Amino acid sequence: MPSAAVRGQGQDRRPESDESSSADDYAKERYGVSSMIQSQEKPDRVLIRIKDLTVEKADEVVWVRGRIHTSRAKGKQCFLVLRQQQFNIQALVAVGQHASKQMVKFAANINKESIVDIEGVVRKAHQKIGGCTQQDVELHVQRIYVISLAEPRLPLQLDDAVRPEVEGEEDGRATVNQDTRLDNRVIDLRTSTSQAIFCLQSGICQLFRETLIRKGFVEIQTPKIISAASEGGANVFTVSYFKSSAYLAQSPQLYKQMCICADFEKVFCVGPVFRAEDSNTHRHLTEFVGLDIEMAFNYHYHEVVDEIADTLVQIFKGLQERFQTEIQTVNKQFPCEPFKFLEPTLRLEYREAVAMLREAGIEMGDEEDLSTPNEKLLGRLVKEKYDTDFYILDKYPLAVRPFYTMPDPVNPKNSNSYDMFMRGEEILSGAQRIHDPQLLTERAQHHGIDLEKIKAYIDSFRFGAPPHAGGGIGLERVTMLYLGLHNVRQTSMFPRDPKRLTP
Amino acid sequence: MPSAAVRGQGQDRRPESDESSSADDYAKERYGVSSMIQSQEKPDRVLIRIKDLTVEKADEVVWVRGRIHTSRAKGKQCFLVLRQQQFNIQALVAVGQHASKQMVKFAANINKESIVDIEGVVRKAHQKIGGCTQQDVELHVQRIYVISLAEPRLPLQLDDAVRPEVEGEEDGRATVNQDTRLDNRVIDLRTSTSQAIFCLQSGICQLFRETLIRKGFVEIQTPKIISAASEGGANVFTVSYFKSSAYLAQSPQLYKQMCICADFEKVFCVGPVFRAEDSNTHRHLTEFVGLDIEMAFNYHYHEVVDEIADTLVQIFKGLQERFQTEIQTVNKQFPCEPFKFLEPTLRLEYREAVAMLREAGIEMGDEEDLSTPNEKLLGRLVKEKYDTDFYILDKYPLAVRPFYTMPDPVNPKNSNSYDMFMRGEEILSGAQRIHDPQLLTERAQHHGIDLEKIKAYIDSFRFGAPPHAGGGIGLERVTMLYLGLHNVRQTSMFPRDPKRLTP
Repeated sequence: MPSAAVRGQGQDRRPESDESSSADDYAKERYGVSSMIQSQEKPDRVLIRIKDLTVEKADEVVWVRGRIHTSRAKGKQCFLVLRQQQFNIQALVAVGQHASKQMVKFAANINKESIVDIEGVVRKAHQKIGGCTQQDVELHVQRIYVISLAEPRLPLQLDDAVRPEVEGEEDGRATVNQDTRLDNRVIDLRTSTSQAIFCLQSGICQLFRETLIRKGFVEIQTPKIISAASEGGANVFTVSYFKSSAYLAQSPQLYKQMCICADFEKVFCVGPVFRAEDSNTHRHLTEFVGLDIEMAFNYHYHEVVDEIADTLVQIFKGLQERFQTEIQTVNKQFPCEPFKFLEPTLRLEYREAVAMLREAGIEMGDEEDLSTPNEKLLGRLVKEKYDTDFYILDKYPLAVRPFYTMPDPVNPKNSNSYDMFMRGEEILSGAQRIHDPQLLTERAQHHGIDLEKIKAYIDSFRFGAPPHAGGGIGLERVTMLYLGLHNVRQTSMFPRDPKRLTP
Repeated sequence: MPSAAVRGQGQDRRPESDESSSADDYAKERYGVSSMIQSQEKPDRVLIRIKDLTVEKADEVVWVRGRIHTSRAKGKQCFLVLRQQQFNIQALVAVGQHASKQMVKFAANINKESIVDIEGVVRKAHQKIGGCTQQDVELHVQRIYVISLAEPRLPLQLDDAVRPEVEGEEDGRATVNQDTRLDNRVIDLRTSTSQAIFCLQSGICQLFRETLIRKGFVEIQTPKIISAASEGGANVFTVSYFKSSAYLAQSPQLYKQMCICADFEKVFCVGPVFRAEDSNTHRHLTEFVGLDIEMAFNYHYHEVVDEIADTLVQIFKGLQERFQTEIQTVNKQFPCEPFKFLEPTLRLEYREAVAMLREAGIEMGDEEDLSTPNEKLLGRLVKEKYDTDFYILDKYPLAVRPFYTMPDPVNPKNSNSYDMFMRGEEILSGAQRIHDPQLLTERAQHHGIDLEKIKAYIDSFRFGAPPHAGGGIGLERVTMLYLGLHNVRQTSMFPRDPKRLTP
């Protein structure tokens, strides 16, 4: 059967026709449901990418695999939109030399989201084809075989899922709510917006590592199952561990610091971070991806701050250069101002931020932490004054930071610690860590921490420890804020929060 | 005090001298214990890397920061070996214009592993300096300040920790057992061998990702906390999740497959994998790092097998090119034949392996799984016959593989599945996965699996699923076997096994 989707892939199943027996169908070998691809053979066929179908390929016969995005029958013709990731093309099945009326009907009846192999001729379009990424060409179908059939009822419609919310409110057309999206993530991730978000997120990870490797950092792998809660006992998940129990790491910090004490000098890691916080907000997840950095420095922790800030700047620049298509795709659904940043990065001291907020009418103490609304307001004030969406806030009050934070040498109420912000939201928290076991013990006692529980931590610094600093970046937040999205669940493929553990 | 380690870093503490008051000491400003570096200032001082101290720098005055690796006083002189990661240099403190006898004594008394800043003149050595990486130069010390003091008693000696085991047995000199190493990992990771192992491991991760990004793969992040045990209920860690409970993912496979069904086409991820197996062997960990790949293919799963094998080959080549120093450093302690591989990679069918083993006198059935000793033996037979340490074993019996494995289209007792081996040990297991919900249901029933529990998994394939295959690589095993090491705990920074949860 030379015309089966793939010769030798087994007998094709062709749907029964109620109008005519297949004997009357001159195109009967040119369409059908291909049998399941079980690696029966290795055909010598090249499948062309949809994004490569341009006028340069006009009049060529090509094979394409894609999904049926939409189909519309109209008399003796059927117009399909064939989708492949972020790209799509119009395909036409029309009664004629290659296609019978049965074939047109077959094509029109293929369920949306089914995967098909199509042989067709690339034709220059008479006019721009709206709604398709390949606007200048269409595909005239000569053969069509279903590779994988989708069920007829989809849990959500892809067109609804990419519709800007404002438009939906205005004209009453449907959008898809977040729980429906997340419950049916396999479908929701197929939208051009989702494809773009997660390709860009993959890019953030690559740029992060590329930059750090170039700077001489070493990637480390830190354990996630730990014997003692890393930052006190609160907000930690417990794991059964054989006959005993253990915890999930809330941060790789202790291990990063051990690597510094073990002379790796500059380390980074990318991995899951677990927080058993019952926070149901737009920016909290119980499991997120941490991009973590730790670095020994010579004399001043600003050596580290500068490296971290530059790493983020390299990420922002890399995204601009390599991911314009993705940024624009996301912008279509979620319009947003381009992300702005300065070189070198703006660094403000905490006291300056407090002064700016007070000038804007906020009442707050010198040693009071920033509330989330105040962080947002500060972001707007900084943007107005300095025209940047990214900045560093340095020298936090010692009182609002963890016990291992190095006090400021000049003003003992301050500390050598910093946060970094994108569009007014925190994406990184970091500090110079105390590397002296005696001071570390004193500070732990001051915080009322049980020294027995952090003995191993303090002991790590007893055999010569270089001064060091570091910080942890939340990947999903960086993606969200760079793209100007409003919920971290949009930038986590399979988000985990207090109420969601599936899929 | 212009001669303090760093001006303004606070008052230096200088140990009391019993021989002479500091008033008599003409070098008293040239040594001491520097106060803790708290980022007091940003001195304009360049610290030179020890590996860059070569004859080209002869007669230059340089500042260096390093650890006291060894010290040996000899009359009016003290010889230090100063270490920085894998590199070290001899430093000489001798009574003379710059150093007083008190200063020599001070230097000689600094505890090993302390971190010091040294100002010195680089001098060409009269003869090669054995035991140092910088054999052609030594450093004539003019100033020496302790930056971080180590406690006097080290839990293990670095020289013992890098001694080849055979030598230890022969001459009675000490080596360090594995538990002592792991209990004091911060010290053990400072050895040249550990530094080299983990720099090379970082390289494996970079090469893995570089290669896949070049091949058009997208990096994904998959959740580690899951609501249902991914591969049946056995060997899974349970996590308390707010008022409910959850599990730790034994594999990212389901999520990789969902990404394939969501049109990402080629995905990879690097992350922790958790196995609650009570296996106390040289190659099992309860938490390890998985390098995972999943890929949609057109017609035959060998398209995927070829990509995975080529990725490993690119890693092997990249290590040879970029990590020669590290490979040689490890070889000094653990001598080993260089790792051999073919291009393209050797692919044997399971039946061929069974035939080779039978020829070597092993009795086994056609559908019997390979035991670990038989895998090892097969590795030796393959090495003899084909001269490669890396090969693919294809077409495993269906009976020994998981329910989601695609059966072979020709011989239903076989399957479209494969393992990959390095030096006779399995490093990857993979297969074409069943992408058809009906067949998947049948196979699950055949295996006696509760369909209710895998409903979400099966449902992922109901809306059009491309044929796909993939596999998971164990990072620690690849590092171990490439370097010819004998225990996976040597290639996990902070290993987790049924008996070890710390540090």
